[in-house]
Amino acid sequence: MATLNVVTGISSIAQDAETLHLAFKADMATLIAPIFYSPGADAEALREAFKGLGTDEDTIISILGHRNASQRQQIIRAYRDLFQGDLIKSLESELSGEFERAVYRWMLEPADRDAVLANVAIKHGSKHYNVIVEIVSVLSPEEVLEVRRAYHNRYKRSLEEEVAAHTTGNLRQLLVGLVTAFRYGGDEINANLAKTEADILHQSIKEKKGNHEEAIRILTTRSKAQLLATFNRYRDDHGTSITKKLLNDVSDDFHKALYTAIRCITDHQKYYEKVLRNAIKRIGTEHADAVTRVVVSRAEKDLKDIKELYYKRNSVHLEDAIAKEFHGDYKKFILTLLGKEDY
Amino acid sequence: MATLNVVTGISSIAQDAETLHLAFKADMATLIAPIFYSPGADAEALREAFKGLGTDEDTIISILGHRNASQRQQIIRAYRDLFQGDLIKSLESELSGEFERAVYRWMLEPADRDAVLANVAIKHGSKHYNVIVEIVSVLSPEEVLEVRRAYHNRYKRSLEEEVAAHTTGNLRQLLVGLVTAFRYGGDEINANLAKTEADILHQSIKEKKGNHEEAIRILTTRSKAQLLATFNRYRDDHGTSITKKLLNDVSDDFHKALYTAIRCITDHQKYYEKVLRNAIKRIGTEHADAVTRVVVSRAEKDLKDIKELYYKRNSVHLEDAIAKEFHGDYKKFILTLLGKEDY
Repeated sequence: MATLNVVTGISSIAQDAETLHLAFKADMATLIAPIFYSPGADAEALREAFKGLGTDEDTIISILGHRNASQRQQIIRAYRDLFQGDLIKSLESELSGEFERAVYRWMLEPADRDAVLANVAIKHGSKHYNVIVEIVSVLSPEEVLEVRRAYHNRYKRSLEEEVAAHTTGNLRQLLVGLVTAFRYGGDEINANLAKTEADILHQSIKEKKGNHEEAIRILTTRSKAQLLATFNRYRDDHGTSITKKLLNDVSDDFHKALYTAIRCITDHQKYYEKVLRNAIKRIGTEHADAVTRVVVSRAEKDLKDIKELYYKRNSVHLEDAIAKEFHGDYKKFILTLLGKEDY
Repeated sequence: MATLNVVTGISSIAQDAETLHLAFKADMATLIAPIFYSPGADAEALREAFKGLGTDEDTIISILGHRNASQRQQIIRAYRDLFQGDLIKSLESELSGEFERAVYRWMLEPADRDAVLANVAIKHGSKHYNVIVEIVSVLSPEEVLEVRRAYHNRYKRSLEEEVAAHTTGNLRQLLVGLVTAFRYGGDEINANLAKTEADILHQSIKEKKGNHEEAIRILTTRSKAQLLATFNRYRDDHGTSITKKLLNDVSDDFHKALYTAIRCITDHQKYYEKVLRNAIKRIGTEHADAVTRVVVSRAEKDLKDIKELYYKRNSVHLEDAIAKEFHGDYKKFILTLLGKEDY
């Protein structure tokens, strides 16, 4: 059984502190993946799990829920070499519902997954554009380029082309600007500029209607370090944070996108905590999608930090909230990615 | 003497057809660079050329005018290793005027050179923005990304950040859109879209004032293949080419940028031919800069094609026109890059 292999793998590794450290991709990741594993054995165990009338979901969860991004790609290749099959397609036909969607997203390479998420958001319309804002505002400039390349490969057009074709006016300018930005990544800040541009942002938010060209320019071209300095200056000079001020206006799509961008740039972990909090409160397919998005996107990055923020804010552990609100294989899979073994 | 080495190198190579082919970087390039050369010997010959009261410009031209981009970088490294010196700085202090600027630009790596050209254009103001439009419209999407990376490294801010901070309104939207575009590079075209968008462009050009948001969206997001289909459709449906139509409006900076972008996307060689034609007619430092820009940018790419277009259009060889209008070391250097040896 592959489950046993995985568990045994981890146990034997645990005896060696040096190796144990390597077994966890990043300190703030929740994913528990072994160093030693066999892509071929995994592919065979998955093939076995698909056989017969039912599907052995537990095996699927115990394998794929414990493999990091590059391991998952190796398993896809091994499956193709051994069985001339497309593992992702097999998973899609064997699984269903929220669980299927979560596994599908988990199996895609990160940039490709974000390209898919952005495309789905465009198809679903303006209510979902925050997903695009989130992706391009949280990732590093080079990571955003990878998503844009993946979008070309998958959809034979550019991400900005689709975003621009579906929007107009301020919203278009802001979204296209965020998608196409290649921000400078250095730490240098210009304090005078921060003051001037904090004032411009304040003026722009006060004028609820009209042209927000200058606010859009600032948000879509300045480096993250410079923007943080500008937001801090905003709070110092205007007595409230820019996001609090914006909250009064989050009525139209433009202000919603502006608000999301500023939150993601300021503190993406706090932003993700809120996405999870809102999604868990309002159960339903769409909300499960939001949970899936955050968990598969951050399980190998900083989901441990986001879990801690969730606990601080809600006095409930994220795992317990998810265990209470969701069920079945979907629940098991999400809890596995959250690093919880005893569900 | 390095000059002899180069010539000898080429002569001995000429006996071997296979090798000869390799000696020329691209069929349509004008640069003549040898396969066999020694970065160390080149660095030493250059060091020797700098010594004493005068400078031996002929040696500098005969070496650097016959080395391709990667060879020039190796010479810079050899010079640093042998003499702990910065070759580019030495060249700047030894040379002067148009010749110095041409050699300086030639010595930069292509993406870095374009970053410098874009920065100079921003500093010189709106009259020079066509240089930025040219760079980002002629290069491939991945090459534009390289220029944007080089801009980060050199200026500690993003290219779009500077462009946006120096412009407003339609011009800003167009320039930032062109700089930040990552167009899809495939050949697929949508004929219906070409018709719809040819009409939108026609409508936008007819309304000289006002909002050109849709025209900007089309120009800055569609793939080059799709845009060519749209421009062709424009000609079929409206009886004249879009650039001819635009020519009546090239009065303000926005329409000038629009015109340049369309020309560069449609046929960048024809565009470059015109830049050279205009620059050679109106002699002066600024115009020498335009000649330098086209020659150093295209000598390793397609300057041979551009030379042919120049001859077809002007019934004068480009080399002869340059020999007539320019003089001294600058003339010798430019003619060398044009592949002419007997000046």
